[in-house]
Formats: sequence, C-alpha cells, structure tokens
Amino acid sequence: MKITLEELTSNCRNLMMKAGVPELAAKRVAENLVSSDARGIHSHGVIRLARYIDCMRSGGIRPDAEPVILAEGPAYIRASANGGLGIPASCEVVERLIAKSKTMPLAAASVNHSDHYGAAGFYAMKCADAGLIGFSMSNTMPLIAVTGAVTAGIGNNPFAYAAPAGKYRAVLFDICMSVVASGKIMLAAADNHPIPEGWILDKNGNPTTDPQAIYDGAIMLPVGGHKGYGLAMMVEILSGVLADAGTLSGVHSWNTVPGEDANTGHFFMTINPAFFGGLDSFSARMEKVIDELKSGKKGKGVSKIYYPGELEFISEKRAKEEGIELPEGSASELERAARMLNQ
Amino acid sequence: MKITLEELTSNCRNLMMKAGVPELAAKRVAENLVSSDARGIHSHGVIRLARYIDCMRSGGIRPDAEPVILAEGPAYIRASANGGLGIPASCEVVERLIAKSKTMPLAAASVNHSDHYGAAGFYAMKCADAGLIGFSMSNTMPLIAVTGAVTAGIGNNPFAYAAPAGKYRAVLFDICMSVVASGKIMLAAADNHPIPEGWILDKNGNPTTDPQAIYDGAIMLPVGGHKGYGLAMMVEILSGVLADAGTLSGVHSWNTVPGEDANTGHFFMTINPAFFGGLDSFSARMEKVIDELKSGKKGKGVSKIYYPGELEFISEKRAKEEGIELPEGSASELERAARMLNQ
Repeated sequence: MKITLEELTSNCRNLMMKAGVPELAAKRVAENLVSSDARGIHSHGVIRLARYIDCMRSGGIRPDAEPVILAEGPAYIRASANGGLGIPASCEVVERLIAKSKTMPLAAASVNHSDHYGAAGFYAMKCADAGLIGFSMSNTMPLIAVTGAVTAGIGNNPFAYAAPAGKYRAVLFDICMSVVASGKIMLAAADNHPIPEGWILDKNGNPTTDPQAIYDGAIMLPVGGHKGYGLAMMVEILSGVLADAGTLSGVHSWNTVPGEDANTGHFFMTINPAFFGGLDSFSARMEKVIDELKSGKKGKGVSKIYYPGELEFISEKRAKEEGIELPEGSASELERAARMLNQ
Repeated sequence: MKITLEELTSNCRNLMMKAGVPELAAKRVAENLVSSDARGIHSHGVIRLARYIDCMRSGGIRPDAEPVILAEGPAYIRASANGGLGIPASCEVVERLIAKSKTMPLAAASVNHSDHYGAAGFYAMKCADAGLIGFSMSNTMPLIAVTGAVTAGIGNNPFAYAAPAGKYRAVLFDICMSVVASGKIMLAAADNHPIPEGWILDKNGNPTTDPQAIYDGAIMLPVGGHKGYGLAMMVEILSGVLADAGTLSGVHSWNTVPGEDANTGHFFMTINPAFFGGLDSFSARMEKVIDELKSGKKGKGVSKIYYPGELEFISEKRAKEEGIELPEGSASELERAARMLNQ
C-alpha cells in the first residue's frame, strides 16, 4: 500500500513528538528519514525511528536536548549536539553553515556529543541545493577491521558529497567504507546464498562466506583494503579528532546507557563556486561532464550510464509523484514505535 | 648500488636545468620525484623525469613557464600553471596556500593548464608539516571505465590527504581510483601470472585476466565499483570543473602536442586545527587514535598493524640514513634523460 511523502513525514513527526522531541526537531527527523526512503535508501529511512525511540526511552539520547555552539567565526562552527538526537543538531548546524558559506570560499562545521545522524548525503544535498559543493561525514562505533587486524577497529564511517549540476538535479555520492553494506549480507542470509570471501570476517576474525555471520558478530572488511581503511581514517580524523568527539572505541552509536552519550562526531564542509568563476559557469561545466559520462559506450545488458546520485533522484521523483511503498521491515518498525509510545 | 638522496636530487635538478627549466623549478621537480622514491613509491619517482623531458622537447610542456595567479583572497587562490610543468607550479601555489592557511580555518587553491604533478601526497605532506590537515588531488586523462561503461570515461584521479600526528610522523594517504595500480598488473605480466577478473577490461571492453592487456589499451576498473567511480568524480569536480581546467576527455596528460597544453587541473585544500581546539590538542588526540589502531588483534602472519602512511615513512627514514637503490626501470630512464640532453 502506497503512502504519500507528506503523510509519512507527518506520521513520523507525530511519533517523535509523542516521544518527547520538540516540534521543529521532530519535523527535522521526519524529513530526513523520509527523504532517504524517497531516494530508495530504506536502510537509512523510517526503519530507524523506533531505534531512536529505544535510545531515548532508555535515557541514552536526550529527546529535548538543544545543540550548543561552542565557538564560531565567519567560516567555521564548532557545535555540540549536547547528547541529543543527531539529525536535529546536524540540520541546525548545517543551516547555519550554509548561511556563513554565502560569503566565504570555504566553510566547515563540526558536531560532537551526537548520535546517528541519518544518511550523510542528506546534509550534502542541502548544501548543493544552496549552490554550494557540500561534504558530510560522521564516525561510528568500530565495525571494520583495519588492514592487518581481525577485530573491529574503526567505524564504517559514512562520507558524502554533493554538487550543483545545472539541468541535472545534482551530483550526490554517499558511501560507507565496507566492501558492501550490511543490508546486502542480510539479503544473502535470507536467500541462504553464500557471500564471496573478502566481504566479512566471522566473530573470531576468520574469513567466512556464511552470510549468517552478520547476525553473530561479523566484522566488516574495508572496500579496496587499505583504500577503505584510509578513507575511514580521514572521516575519523575530521569527525572524531578535529570535532573533539569520541574516536574509535570511544564512540557508542545508538547509545542506550542513561547519563552517557554516544559522542558520535560529524563534520560538514562547503566550497563556494562563486569564488571559483561563479555558479553559472560551474553548473554549465558540470552539465558538460555529466553529458560526456553518460555518452560512454555501454556494457552488455546496460541500458543507461548513470551519474552519481541519478538513481536516487529517479526514485525521489517517483516517490514525490506517486508516494512510496514501504518495505515490510520499515513498516513493522513504525508499528513498533507506535506500540511503544502507546504503552 | 646505493645513491644518497642529496646526490640523486642534485642529478635530477641538473638534468632539468639542462632541459631548460629554471633553477628553482628544477630543484622543485627533483625534490618531489626523489621524495617519492625515498618513500618507496618508485612509480612516481625519478622514473618520470625522462618523460617530462619528452614532453618539453616536443613542445607539449613549456620548460620555463611561470605560474600565474588568476584570482585570490584571504582563503583561496586560483592559479594557472601556464602550460608549464605541474610540479613547480603546484609547489609555488601550495607554498602560498600554506601561508594563507596560518590565519584561516580553511583555505583552497586550484591550478589549471597544468600537467602531471608527481605524487599527490607530496603536497598534502607539505601542509601536514606546517601543522595543517592537507588535501591534494588532480584529474588525469580518462583511464577508468565508469560504472556501466566499457570505455575509459574518467581519469584514474589521484587523491591524497595528510594530517599532523604528534609523536608519529603524520598520517598520509594517497590513492588512485582503480582497483589496483597499473604497476601491479605490469608485475603480473612480467611473471606471466593471470590477474583476477575485475581488475581491468581489455581494449574492446571485455573482462580479461590477461595482464598483457595493460600494454594493449586495457581499461582500468574503479575500486569498489560505484565507490571508486564517485570518488574519481569528486576529484574531477574539484580539480577539473571548479579549477576551470580540462575535464574528462579534455585532459591530455603527458602532453606532447606543441602549442597545446594538457590542461590538467589540481586542487589543494587545508583545514587548520588551530580553529578547532588547537594543534596540540589535535596532535594528542591523533596519537591516541593511532595507538589504538595499532593495538588491534593482528591477523595470522601479520607482525604489525600500520597507520596510513607508516610504511612510506619507514622507507623514507631508511632512505635518508642509507640512501636508496633505484629500481632498474628508474635508473634506465635517468640514463635515457641524460642521453637525450647530451644529443
């Protein structure tokens, strides 16, 4: 059964408010999660809402925390989410960052004492929609084995960028640092298919092709070996070290310990094309690059070459026009959230 | 036979001067290339020198071009290498960028009308040595098949970052966007070993395990599929589009066409920890992160877990103390350079 984005957003906002989240923050959480579902990234959509409520109910996330600006200048912001939800704090900080970026060639903002902030690309797109090249990244609790190790040593740290692209919606790129997302392994587990060696290690650090390991302490391997390791480290340096947030084992994503916080860190950055020849010229050149990419010779069975983000935008456009069909897992998590709040 | 870094640098500087490169520029080329050999990255070391001379002799690179500042502000520089060598222009611009970065939270510089600029990490390390987090990237002529395509559509665009790390030398990360570097495929070709599927396509766009294809129009595949594609696109957006340099097929690396230039673009960026709690606090936190990474449980046969860049620094330290043994290919290219210049 399809639901419109407006109705889904409204439902989610109401659930968050019922959980004690102030109205604006509740709206921001709802818009962020629904935006991911609209783009087809259900793993980062409304399926997460019940888990936010779990954390708030246990006292691990403060529902009504207000983000605090620790320091700022014309081109930077250092903020704290103050133990609250990651999404409202990040939205607030990125809005301020975009305002500063209008008159600056580059600007950046860091956030500490935060928790899960939804899809990284959401914030990068806010920047692109404002005519800026935007970057967004966050550390997470350790999930990946760094090169040489067989234990989870560093987060599966998401990294995203987005750029205006003239007649095209934008370029949007949003990845984590493991070979594959855990969702893909869960699908293989459901289908009882072995996975290729090199995706994960089992809980003891041994290579495995058994997808069930994902439910039993599996450790993700970094994409491209040392390349994924080094990119995860870049995110850790900016979101953890520079942002003065938790680092590595000091990050406790999805925190449920009362009186503590996950101390997840985020880092956002903008580059303003106005200082590099102007947005019009930048956009025209982006169109030319995308036109050329899409005109490459297609492989067997390939009907179209996509630019980064295009598939998400196709999904988003359809969702806006037709509404979306939520996957079963997302729908049942929303029901669980409602049940929790009615108790 | 070992040679000291000083002697090798002096030899290379003399060769460049003999080829018509002014003294400071010649010194910068020599220092850059020798630094890569010292770090064990021979593919980007003095082996490249003869090829620079090929380009200059053919008129494709102007030996005495002076870089030009097109526009600048307190936190940005837009420059042109003016059809000259990539290394001296990049050194000049990065020195100016570092000077600006002392009083700025972020700063960036772009360069267009350039050519090959050596190892990307060289410039990032200059920033790290100045107490900054540094980023360095460049586009190249198309070498990689983007997702869905079977032709070379985008450059194997290098990306590097470096960060100060207290008692550790620094963190240094420097990658290209293909699954493996072409040098690794050349080694397999020399040993007559098949390579795994998924590394390259043959010149007709078909998957191949024959390493000889690298000498016959092979197309590289991006690391992690769409992940490598999107990262190459990020570099293309900053180094090509934003820098107003050539993009995709408009880049002609190693240009030998008289009166034209490669129009390669570079992009450099700094983030200053002084605005985010101070360099001392940043460095102490970096040490803590590296200590923890290195303390992970090691896999079978692994004697040590390295932080990004550590292997290069070990090599560099040894090279400074003992000199280096140049690989045969590097030595023979230096001899070729000398022969060309003596004719």
